[in-house]
Amino acid sequence: MSISIRDVLLPSGRVDSVYVEGNRIAAVGEKREADVTIDGRRKALLPGFVNTHTHAAMTLLRGYADDMELHAWLTDRILPAEAKLTPEAIYWGTKLACLEMIKSGTTAFNDMYFHMDRAALAVAEMGIRGFMGVAFFDGLDPAFGEEQLKKVREAAERIHAMRSERVVPAIAPHAIYTVSPPTLRAAKDLADARGWLYHIHVSETKREVDEARRDHGKTPVQLLDAIGALGANVIAAHSVWLEDDEVRTYAARGVKVAHCPISNMKLSVGRAMPLAAMREAGVTVSLGTDGAASNNSLDMFQTMKVGALLHKFASGRPTVAGANEVLDMATREGARALRLDAGDIAVGKLADFFLVDLRRPELTPLHSLASNLVYAATGDSVDTVVCDGRVLMRDRHVPGEEEVRQKAASVAADLLQGA
Amino acid sequence: MSISIRDVLLPSGRVDSVYVEGNRIAAVGEKREADVTIDGRRKALLPGFVNTHTHAAMTLLRGYADDMELHAWLTDRILPAEAKLTPEAIYWGTKLACLEMIKSGTTAFNDMYFHMDRAALAVAEMGIRGFMGVAFFDGLDPAFGEEQLKKVREAAERIHAMRSERVVPAIAPHAIYTVSPPTLRAAKDLADARGWLYHIHVSETKREVDEARRDHGKTPVQLLDAIGALGANVIAAHSVWLEDDEVRTYAARGVKVAHCPISNMKLSVGRAMPLAAMREAGVTVSLGTDGAASNNSLDMFQTMKVGALLHKFASGRPTVAGANEVLDMATREGARALRLDAGDIAVGKLADFFLVDLRRPELTPLHSLASNLVYAATGDSVDTVVCDGRVLMRDRHVPGEEEVRQKAASVAADLLQGA
Repeated sequence: MSISIRDVLLPSGRVDSVYVEGNRIAAVGEKREADVTIDGRRKALLPGFVNTHTHAAMTLLRGYADDMELHAWLTDRILPAEAKLTPEAIYWGTKLACLEMIKSGTTAFNDMYFHMDRAALAVAEMGIRGFMGVAFFDGLDPAFGEEQLKKVREAAERIHAMRSERVVPAIAPHAIYTVSPPTLRAAKDLADARGWLYHIHVSETKREVDEARRDHGKTPVQLLDAIGALGANVIAAHSVWLEDDEVRTYAARGVKVAHCPISNMKLSVGRAMPLAAMREAGVTVSLGTDGAASNNSLDMFQTMKVGALLHKFASGRPTVAGANEVLDMATREGARALRLDAGDIAVGKLADFFLVDLRRPELTPLHSLASNLVYAATGDSVDTVVCDGRVLMRDRHVPGEEEVRQKAASVAADLLQGA
Repeated sequence: MSISIRDVLLPSGRVDSVYVEGNRIAAVGEKREADVTIDGRRKALLPGFVNTHTHAAMTLLRGYADDMELHAWLTDRILPAEAKLTPEAIYWGTKLACLEMIKSGTTAFNDMYFHMDRAALAVAEMGIRGFMGVAFFDGLDPAFGEEQLKKVREAAERIHAMRSERVVPAIAPHAIYTVSPPTLRAAKDLADARGWLYHIHVSETKREVDEARRDHGKTPVQLLDAIGALGANVIAAHSVWLEDDEVRTYAARGVKVAHCPISNMKLSVGRAMPLAAMREAGVTVSLGTDGAASNNSLDMFQTMKVGALLHKFASGRPTVAGANEVLDMATREGARALRLDAGDIAVGKLADFFLVDLRRPELTPLHSLASNLVYAATGDSVDTVVCDGRVLMRDRHVPGEEEVRQKAASVAADLLQGA
């Protein structure tokens, strides 16, 4: 399968043609013949967004519990609803999430949820890249943790057995306040042994940090480091309440951060994560939407804009988190976090990208492509999406989308019936 | 001209039919025959957004000067570019803004800019409601202010002479640091005498307040009140740095606030405006996008979401600025600010509304319409727009839109040539 995109605006500012063979970009600057030819005029070609923290199937709970205190949100609404989630529900909820992500330019995402082998099947069918983090808790009971981890390993191995490069397992202990240190460490050993990502929530709220100090005499980062659970395969979601020495620990261990500005603001986590300190220390900071119950959109354009706004507002400096930096976090840094050979439009890179239709009022005039993308665009400006060398959306049409939407709506209604 | 919308989801949660005759909603709950019949199934009907603070033609400068310090942004980029704005440029820039607003569900807006008679013509042709604030400065020189105000009055009277209820003039002194007290007061007398709105920036930054104390021994609100320039026809944009007693002054005088959360965050104004105090005091708080040079989008869905996020984040309370409250600010409160008999889907109200297509992935499932609109939707979910009883957009098509886009793009490129 080959794709030729003719005369398209590239991130470099040049108008050029791009040729894809198999799942890689094979040429830039050559108008080759191909199986699929796309007229790129009045369009821009961008590397696909990489959403490094979400709970995909939480699309089923979108709008079900907003404007609530975090504790009431979790215990009165989210956990009881999640307890009723079936593998079938997860399958359709994940498909809905993939559809929404494709329609807004995301080509890879880092998931954390339950029934992940069914979620993996959904992702495989939808065509984008998924890192299927098998989530678990042990209620701070290491013995129960051992049982849980056995199931996690089995689920991860089932996903691995799908033998896809595009859909792979990850190990996803929920957080230090829901998983005991021995289980956290055993999970890390498993992830390391199998070469998988280790996806965990870290220091999202001040309460989490205060309670960790009280219970362990350590912050969450200090605790994870003490038990040897930090490393280059760790995706630490949120990481809002970090001190400077903890930022240095992240840098030293190669931990990757999934920054979720919308979720952090919506749930009032109390401060902005230390973006400048992290970037200065050389920590890879990528962007995540978080789940649809705490955002409630999976559109990375929104996450870019709110990310830029949050850091300008919190620092008092309008020059920080500029459009190019934020665009980079959503693409290249995301690819680096997930160890994908993607994030650039260049020969040899994975063919994961999207085309933006520039003939839209909100993208007019075109003084700066990066500014327009970060501050003015929405997911609807995405016209065509290619992932792993396959065209997933063309002219905003994704095959089978109405079935996915209807099935997910019906599953979601069933889920909350009587709630 | 009559319009019949059949079987549509209303904000009340009921599915019902709506009938429009002339420029008013004439019936709710009756399927009458009409000149235009719209199938409302799987759609929701919402009152049109009212954008109470923008500089419409600044669309021409979108993306031209982002991520800069406010002072450098204004003096090095915006003012030199604005000095070159011709009436022709304003005309096309305003048309582009109207197009963008129509496509995202806005049916009325409160403008503040230059060459406003040409802008008024653009708005009249595009079909939405415009309050055409004739902006001016006097460089703190009352004598020059008198000259300026004469021109302002002439421009406003030219707009008034268009004899439209849909496009009306307003008086728009820029701010207390650019217009002298005598001119501010004379402008207020003019607005009062003619029954027009008085549209002004107030206490946007701490620097503005500090300098007012230094130069006048009063805050901007105290100064405006002392000279008798506060009243029920005043739209005070921003109003970020207000103390409690100033909030009470607003309430006592009936001042309306145009809150611009995205602009405030992007330009790092230093804190969130006191929303809770204002609502508690009974001040009408509506929402504005501000101009495309400081947002950079005119999509009110974005402004609603960021408004909700900002107040949750700044207050530390996820329960504040809930979806229903924010939706109300964007519609009913905006209509109240601009003294429009609109903002509700009810018999006798102006026929200013839009239809949202609910068959979209990000609006699925539909646990809460308000949550989905505020936290998940973008302007692209708007399918049909009616203003003043006329269909301005149907199936996302606005007649003549490509010409507007191309002309505006060309005017914007000319404007910055050699810049």
